[in-house]
Amino acid sequence: MTAPSRRRLRQEDPASTRELILAEAMRLIARGGVEELRIKDVADAVGIQPPSVYKHFASRDAIIGTLARQMVEDIARFLLPDVDLEPVPAVEQWARGVVWFFATRPAYAYMLLRDLATPGGYEAIVAALGPAQETYKVAPIKAVHDKLERILQKGVALGLFRAMDTGVFTAMIYGAVLSALVWPYTPQPPVRTAAQLDALQADMAATALRLLEPARS
Amino acid sequence: MTAPSRRRLRQEDPASTRELILAEAMRLIARGGVEELRIKDVADAVGIQPPSVYKHFASRDAIIGTLARQMVEDIARFLLPDVDLEPVPAVEQWARGVVWFFATRPAYAYMLLRDLATPGGYEAIVAALGPAQETYKVAPIKAVHDKLERILQKGVALGLFRAMDTGVFTAMIYGAVLSALVWPYTPQPPVRTAAQLDALQADMAATALRLLEPARS
Repeated sequence: MTAPSRRRLRQEDPASTRELILAEAMRLIARGGVEELRIKDVADAVGIQPPSVYKHFASRDAIIGTLARQMVEDIARFLLPDVDLEPVPAVEQWARGVVWFFATRPAYAYMLLRDLATPGGYEAIVAALGPAQETYKVAPIKAVHDKLERILQKGVALGLFRAMDTGVFTAMIYGAVLSALVWPYTPQPPVRTAAQLDALQADMAATALRLLEPARS
Repeated sequence: MTAPSRRRLRQEDPASTRELILAEAMRLIARGGVEELRIKDVADAVGIQPPSVYKHFASRDAIIGTLARQMVEDIARFLLPDVDLEPVPAVEQWARGVVWFFATRPAYAYMLLRDLATPGGYEAIVAALGPAQETYKVAPIKAVHDKLERILQKGVALGLFRAMDTGVFTAMIYGAVLSALVWPYTPQPPVRTAAQLDALQADMAATALRLLEPARS
């Protein structure tokens, strides 16, 4: 007796086909960037015909939009700063988390860079989340920003941190992490091994804290 | 007696029309990103007919490619680390320069982010400079990398810096700067005023040095 084929299972469970499409889209974006995502390639990877993809998503942009919403939710789930920790370990943990998050989800790194490369935001992401300048109002993003702000303010109140705009701080850490993960303009291959990731996490935790350090006397 | 019209001058001097096209393309990219660059908009901005643009550039991608080569040359001209300075001021000056360079040339910031958003590099830039992974061999980029590496190694030899991969260091600083300059996901508007730029320059100089600091005992 053989197990039912993957295709058979998927035909019986549209939800799982949808999930497979999103997972394969993530894999394809990680490999070639957002522009290279094609319905045909997604269908081939999942093992269905291209028209079947359209039963789940109206367009290529709709897949990217769904991934953008998923990214926002994943950020709020995995990168929510822990306000119950003291400010220093809270920032360290958060900065390490940013490295881990994008290192394990390179598709999100390329999506976010693509969004940053367009003033106002990348078309498919804007369709899903609104203009980039308004994203701070999206509930999961706001939750992350507000918690990080509370931690930074607590650090300032305790004399551990200097006052620094939460947005600029976040931008610098995210930018440093994204760039370190994908930077191609160097003889060395990009950060990939567990040891390199570990070193990058330590670097980013230290950098985040040093960015926030009060001026030394 | 009136001065000759700008158009008249341009008709007499193809080189200056070419320069105007590139300058207007920079302005359009700064406003809307690389994707939004359209021949018609360039022509309108310069005050010529679209077909006249094609006398100077074969395509939209050719304009972007020319700007990419110009960016590389400008980086080598304005961001060449000064090996005659001591390591600490050399790194400070370089990091401040990166902020100044992209703040005053937002088109380059968006072009570079667009290139980073695609594994292997953005099509038009690859056509001009080769695959992103090979860019480190391009002479002006190599000159910048080699000088920065000499400064970092001198800092290590003097006990001022820890050993750090030049590529990872460059990636983190460039990423932090680019992201801080364009980051839209925050209630505050992006860094724009002279005072904000000054603060960002100070932050980046400090961050660069702190990244390189030997572990504290």
